[in-house]
Amino acid sequence: MVAYWRESSMKAISLLGSTGSIGTNALRVTASFPGAFRIVGLSGGKNVAVLADQTEQNHPEIVSTGNEGSCVELQAILRKRNYPMAQTRFVHGVEGHTEVSCHPDVTLVLAAITGAAGLLPTYRAIEAGKTIALANKEAMVMAGQLMKQKASERGVEIIPVDSEHNAIHQCLRGGRKEEVRRLILTASGGPFRETPSEKLRSVTREQALNHPTWRMGRKITIDSATLMNKGLEVIEASWFFNISPDHVGVVIHPQSVVHSMVEFVDGSILAQLGPTDMRIPIQYALTFPERWHSPLPPLEIHKHAQLEFFEPDREKFKCLDLAYRAIRSGGTAPTVLNAANEVAVDAFLHDGLAFHEIPDIIESVLNSHPRYEVADLDSILKADAWARNEASKLAHQSRNAGTGQRK
Amino acid sequence: MVAYWRESSMKAISLLGSTGSIGTNALRVTASFPGAFRIVGLSGGKNVAVLADQTEQNHPEIVSTGNEGSCVELQAILRKRNYPMAQTRFVHGVEGHTEVSCHPDVTLVLAAITGAAGLLPTYRAIEAGKTIALANKEAMVMAGQLMKQKASERGVEIIPVDSEHNAIHQCLRGGRKEEVRRLILTASGGPFRETPSEKLRSVTREQALNHPTWRMGRKITIDSATLMNKGLEVIEASWFFNISPDHVGVVIHPQSVVHSMVEFVDGSILAQLGPTDMRIPIQYALTFPERWHSPLPPLEIHKHAQLEFFEPDREKFKCLDLAYRAIRSGGTAPTVLNAANEVAVDAFLHDGLAFHEIPDIIESVLNSHPRYEVADLDSILKADAWARNEASKLAHQSRNAGTGQRK
Repeated sequence: MVAYWRESSMKAISLLGSTGSIGTNALRVTASFPGAFRIVGLSGGKNVAVLADQTEQNHPEIVSTGNEGSCVELQAILRKRNYPMAQTRFVHGVEGHTEVSCHPDVTLVLAAITGAAGLLPTYRAIEAGKTIALANKEAMVMAGQLMKQKASERGVEIIPVDSEHNAIHQCLRGGRKEEVRRLILTASGGPFRETPSEKLRSVTREQALNHPTWRMGRKITIDSATLMNKGLEVIEASWFFNISPDHVGVVIHPQSVVHSMVEFVDGSILAQLGPTDMRIPIQYALTFPERWHSPLPPLEIHKHAQLEFFEPDREKFKCLDLAYRAIRSGGTAPTVLNAANEVAVDAFLHDGLAFHEIPDIIESVLNSHPRYEVADLDSILKADAWARNEASKLAHQSRNAGTGQRK
Repeated sequence: MVAYWRESSMKAISLLGSTGSIGTNALRVTASFPGAFRIVGLSGGKNVAVLADQTEQNHPEIVSTGNEGSCVELQAILRKRNYPMAQTRFVHGVEGHTEVSCHPDVTLVLAAITGAAGLLPTYRAIEAGKTIALANKEAMVMAGQLMKQKASERGVEIIPVDSEHNAIHQCLRGGRKEEVRRLILTASGGPFRETPSEKLRSVTREQALNHPTWRMGRKITIDSATLMNKGLEVIEASWFFNISPDHVGVVIHPQSVVHSMVEFVDGSILAQLGPTDMRIPIQYALTFPERWHSPLPPLEIHKHAQLEFFEPDREKFKCLDLAYRAIRSGGTAPTVLNAANEVAVDAFLHDGLAFHEIPDIIESVLNSHPRYEVADLDSILKADAWARNEASKLAHQSRNAGTGQRK
């Protein structure tokens, strides 16, 4: 075997969200190709211990934390370990993250800050002409139109990291844009695929966090349990691949072996399969347009005796149709959907909101939202803030009404 | 929907083997795009009635039959139907088929004559610089090295029609040649997938001809039952895609929904799925590099509840390993394997040879073959003739020994 990466020049990258699930996996990928990547910037949130380790291991030019307190704390830890402090600049907050993503040395940014917080540093990196490996689906959901427009203006390539969109990116290589009939996103169905509707009212946080096939962050794991994750992916796919949501389908596939598919106008479907290990799509995005030898064990397809496919239950999982409704409505509706969902999921995780109330809150917020067109990043951030406020009020009311999770 | 084919110029094509399963399906494909194809030449064997209809419907420049008798017969039928005889030239035999494939107007030849008979007209078409849609896997098995070499010299594109190789051709668009780790051919497993080894001794011709998923010609249907079809496809894939047989795997997939796969070095697998209808790969080959809108109903993947994958039983189906042995041995060994198989299958279909004797005959012929390198088409045809003679002798002995099929 030839180590193809040796032929490539070293890639200078920044990681937004380096301490999360995607970020730590990305650093495992880069570590498996010594000499191939240079880590220019790291940005994390509150997980200062992990960020300290990552800084020590990679000696980046710049490191950003969630706030000033974490930044001070991180520097204190590193000083104690005799880290050469002069090598690295320490910054924090959205401005800090943006400095990380826009650092002049950087050619590729892994955008893996979950939620709306990742939007600005990612958007600025596109403006700065950086290639984007996009794991922050919320950024694309909130501001897909703007991001794609800006990327097109600046000639910037965005490669999706999400296993589904990454799969579609791979399958689309099999034909031209106008030859696509349909994108087919696969969904594991989450932990409640076989739970009767009426029992969804009493599921606990622990049950919802127990995903059958993927180990992921908490927010996305809850989104998988409500199928909102797939709804957000429909929106993301529609923006990303510039295709009507009417041509984006969802199929339940509990084994998570087929990561998604593209159907072409001639009746052929291309599908991407792989181990359920995020290092596969992360590596694809970091090395595109090349494919490098992965050290991971291969998918042994002959041992996956059975792959099942069936339609999602749209009655039971209302979030899916709410997402279709938001993207069909367009304008700021996807932003509002996303913001309301973030608040509702947070309330479920931390404030005892009941599982079945998540779609209820989102639907109420969508219903009361005065939809308007997306003019710029400000109009998006305004819609986002409005929706968060509305959703918080509803979550608060619900808590006071005592309809929440049983302990 | 836009009819993309209108943008293309009319394709002038010849069909070798127009009356067979692939040929008739190809004419259904061309008929579904009026104005897109011009049928320049047709060639059939003994099925004069079908060839007469095809001639009437397409008014080709040239038509070839298997022999002089059929040629006379065909012309008699057409004269009776007041066909304008001056429009078409009538020829026959291998020379006739070669005139059909090499007609100066033709840009694309569908090579769908089963078995060794199709080799020469196909090879001459490559020499003449025609694009080849290759359905005759035996030609590639016998003379893959020569054909690929000649195609490369002449800058000729060969697009596989076989559903498996066609699938691989599609999946390979997802990466570069040096990024391929493995080709994975899927096999339905044939009608005897679940038949115990000892019962294979007593299977009848009718049982062997009853393929579970595909409706095909008789020869290929028997090859599917012995798994020799998959063995020939391993050899074909090795030549076609210039890859060691050690990097070509076979997986049993009884539903025939996934037509084959490519595993890349980064751990991603691309798979092509589609309805079990040969018009899909035929159309792909005829329209490549474009994909045109198929009028066929799409594959409804969510209704295919279960796709199974498992390893083939190499003890029970000896033909698979015989094929691996032949391609690893190289030289004329694949030619000999193919010839012995054709004779043995013919003896099974017409002379009462027992099913389990098919691999025995092939193995004996391979064992007694003095392997030599392929210098030219003559050395291939010589090895082919030698193997046919040897295999016939063995089949004859077996018949006299009375070990054949029970009636």
